[in-house]
Amino acid sequence: MTNEVTLHSFLGSPFSCRVKIALNLKGIKYEVIEENLSEKGPELLKYNPVYKKIPVLVHDGNPVSESLVIVEYVNDAWGQVPLLPQDAYGKAQVRFWAKFVDDKCIPALLKVVRSHGEEQAVAEAHEQLQFLENELKGNKFFGGDNINLVDIAASYISFWLGAAEEAVGIKVLNKDKFPKLTEWCDNYINCQAVKDCLPTRDATIGIYKMRFGKT
Amino acid sequence: MTNEVTLHSFLGSPFSCRVKIALNLKGIKYEVIEENLSEKGPELLKYNPVYKKIPVLVHDGNPVSESLVIVEYVNDAWGQVPLLPQDAYGKAQVRFWAKFVDDKCIPALLKVVRSHGEEQAVAEAHEQLQFLENELKGNKFFGGDNINLVDIAASYISFWLGAAEEAVGIKVLNKDKFPKLTEWCDNYINCQAVKDCLPTRDATIGIYKMRFGKT
Repeated sequence: MTNEVTLHSFLGSPFSCRVKIALNLKGIKYEVIEENLSEKGPELLKYNPVYKKIPVLVHDGNPVSESLVIVEYVNDAWGQVPLLPQDAYGKAQVRFWAKFVDDKCIPALLKVVRSHGEEQAVAEAHEQLQFLENELKGNKFFGGDNINLVDIAASYISFWLGAAEEAVGIKVLNKDKFPKLTEWCDNYINCQAVKDCLPTRDATIGIYKMRFGKT
Repeated sequence: MTNEVTLHSFLGSPFSCRVKIALNLKGIKYEVIEENLSEKGPELLKYNPVYKKIPVLVHDGNPVSESLVIVEYVNDAWGQVPLLPQDAYGKAQVRFWAKFVDDKCIPALLKVVRSHGEEQAVAEAHEQLQFLENELKGNKFFGGDNINLVDIAASYISFWLGAAEEAVGIKVLNKDKFPKLTEWCDNYINCQAVKDCLPTRDATIGIYKMRFGKT
């Protein structure tokens, strides 16, 4: 094991950032290859022939794809700073909520952004966010005092959602309605391991204005 | 730990069967509560308030939802007969392919069944099935000599797909095109742990005729 770690990434992608955050938390040094998504490199296509998508982590020549699968791999491959609980039931709960973020929350939030805050879309997104609000209980992170797989899965909500809201002139994550989740966003993006891989807010708003703004 | 294991299930559901197969392989005794999905029981709603769906496994009062999360839980909670490799890279590969079955294969196959074999839908399903065909290599199961999480994830393909094909009068999993996958279906459904929880073929065809048949 030479411990060569390379991440095929796309600048500013919340899914690439999930992996960067996991690696930062573990203290793993890695090289980043920023891909041009309109002309994907031959290595990306070789390493991820199924989805042809970033992020792909390559560890000593072995590729792993799909961001949550990669984060679990990072957790399994490097023991320090656990990103999932040790017990079977704790692990299952964390996997459930991480999957929930991917299957329910992010699609619901994207629908709100794409529809510029259409009423029914907002109601659906609020329903999903309420589950996360409750799941935080009184904790700093979904992982309690420390970041876990659920926090990492929810990265989009902590930073990219706010940029998208500003880009299209809406507010879906209201502080009054979701005080714990709003506080979580602050706590999360102010962790050094997270802060170090976030794109700039202005650039992200600019990209979202082009992608989702009124035409 | 009293080791009380209860599965909230729906008779004949391939997702419930995933959990039953995992429990059978591990040799765990469990009680089954067959839910009436048109009038969901209060326990199901209490245990899975997010999705309000079967399967839900309740182990000593602790509920776990989402079939692949449950199968990983079963694997973590009971050490015997591992359903995932021990090494980090092996685990990641298995999680990737199990997720691929859920995210790509099953939706593509359902599209074929619902469209009664529409050409474009068949082409897309074939593309996904080809990845599984290649992934089998020369092995009896995706797990090699033994069933693993990928085999369990692909349960739908082994039995329910054939019933759906017969119900709507199509053939998407051709033996000529997918010889390894066809052989895998036979190997898989003839394992005692699998066979013991499959519904009858005639009943399944009957249900699919009602659900997907020409009207």
